[in-house]
Amino acid sequence: MSSTTPETAHKVLAESLGQIVLVRLRGGKSLRGRLKSYDMHLNIVLDDAEEELEDGTRRRLGTVLIRGENVVMLSPIQ
Amino acid sequence: MSSTTPETAHKVLAESLGQIVLVRLRGGKSLRGRLKSYDMHLNIVLDDAEEELEDGTRRRLGTVLIRGENVVMLSPIQ
Amino acid sequence: MSSTTPETAHKVLAESLGQIVLVRLRGGKSLRGRLKSYDMHLNIVLDDAEEELEDGTRRRLGTVLIRGENVVMLSPIQ
Amino acid sequence: MSSTTPETAHKVLAESLGQIVLVRLRGGKSLRGRLKSYDMHLNIVLDDAEEELEDGTRRRLGTVLIRGENVVMLSPIQ
Amino acid sequence: MSSTTPETAHKVLAESLGQIVLVRLRGGKSLRGRLKSYDMHLNIVLDDAEEELEDGTRRRLGTVLIRGENVVMLSPIQ
Amino acid sequence: MSSTTPETAHKVLAESLGQIVLVRLRGGKSLRGRLKSYDMHLNIVLDDAEEELEDGTRRRLGTVLIRGENVVMLSPIQ
Amino acid sequence: MSSTTPETAHKVLAESLGQIVLVRLRGGKSLRGRLKSYDMHLNIVLDDAEEELEDGTRRRLGTVLIRGENVVMLSPIQ
Repeated sequence: MSSTTPETAHKVLAESLGQIVLVRLRGGKSLRGRLKSYDMHLNIVLDDAEEELEDGTRRRLGTVLIRGENVVMLSPIQ
Repeated sequence: MSSTTPETAHKVLAESLGQIVLVRLRGGKSLRGRLKSYDMHLNIVLDDAEEELEDGTRRRLGTVLIRGENVVMLSPIQ
Repeated sequence: MSSTTPETAHKVLAESLGQIVLVRLRGGKSLRGRLKSYDMHLNIVLDDAEEELEDGTRRRLGTVLIRGENVVMLSPIQ
Repeated sequence: MSSTTPETAHKVLAESLGQIVLVRLRGGKSLRGRLKSYDMHLNIVLDDAEEELEDGTRRRLGTVLIRGENVVMLSPIQ
Repeated sequence: MSSTTPETAHKVLAESLGQIVLVRLRGGKSLRGRLKSYDMHLNIVLDDAEEELEDGTRRRLGTVLIRGENVVMLSPIQ
Repeated sequence: MSSTTPETAHKVLAESLGQIVLVRLRGGKSLRGRLKSYDMHLNIVLDDAEEELEDGTRRRLGTVLIRGENVVMLSPIQ
Repeated sequence: MSSTTPETAHKVLAESLGQIVLVRLRGGKSLRGRLKSYDMHLNIVLDDAEEELEDGTRRRLGTVLIRGENVVMLSPIQ
């Protein structure tokens, strides 16, 4: 499948730099934090990150490096 | 296996741009939202997205970038 | 392993175009619908598709694009 | 690791063509049916196939195309 | 990482040909049987194989072809 | 997707050498220890490592070599 | 990411040859035994190996060949 509007994904990421994002991971965990960097594999660095387990438990983590392979989805928090 | 009618998948995606789609993810979560973009790996951007857990719980997310590797299926909502 | 009769898989798919097929997915879900297209990765488009969960629950979905990687098996319904 | 006797796997498959085989799949499901074809990725076509769930439930499926990636093991039924 | 003594793995396999081995599979199942062949991907053929489920249940299978990708470990039974 | 600021991930890792980091693994286990080395696949060596299971149980392990493929995320402990 | 001190992983493995190591596998099983060999994929041969299930059950296995893909971590036992 050729992409029709692939630049939109870049745009979502580029516009989210410095913003708070929600990142859902495989296995049910989520993180929210300030998007500091990302690469083409969706390896992500968050600042001021907070972990959220499936049971709602939260834990402050600070800076977090996430392996892209574990990212299910990313959503800027409005 | 050579494909007989591969253009149909493209057509489904192309015709769904701007439309509301249901996206089922690995692990049981689903998202529905307006299809804003997709690429050849089925990386998807949805607008006005809403998350739906297996127990029926819903949560508004706004714009969401989904890693294609986690997509099980996509269905335009009629 | 070299294949002895690989053309049979093609034949099953080609003969199922336009027919109702059962598609079992990883994670326990199944879909049945009219096979509209497939490609070499077993990416599949079904029309008039119906989802069937492991507990027997059904849900009408209409047109569905399935990522081949999630397909466990496909069976034409006689 | 270089193989010492790789031709044995071919032989098992070639000798099973037309015979009833048991195929165990990832996730716990099994199928038994007449081996109609296979390829180098262990994509398999069975005729007169019957599905067997982990709880012992059976279901007749007829012709089934199995994606090789989901095959755990294959055993000719004596 | 470069290997220091990789020939040992070959040696374990080569010396186990014709011997009874225990094979642990992903998902919790195990098989034991006479090692008839293996290849570089750890695709394995066992003769006189017996399946052992996690609850201790056993089942005779005869000849079994195992896809290497599902092998967790192999141990010659002394 | 081209990366905008990929050097940040390097920086997080480089600045964490010799520091205590938290490493979350697939399957729910976590490790904390002094980051001694890492490579481009996120293969990691920790010193003075301690394992933490999902139920809160801890176990001292000393030096640990972690396969990068199992790393979900890494966070320097402030 | 370029590695800064990748030789450390080699060193951990090389220094562990002939020593007792703990190997954690995907799915929750662990093995401990004398490290006899390893290769670049972390395929491992242990001697005098003992299996340890998640419930604490142990079982003597002798020589064990472990597929690297299933290795989560390896730790020399001090």
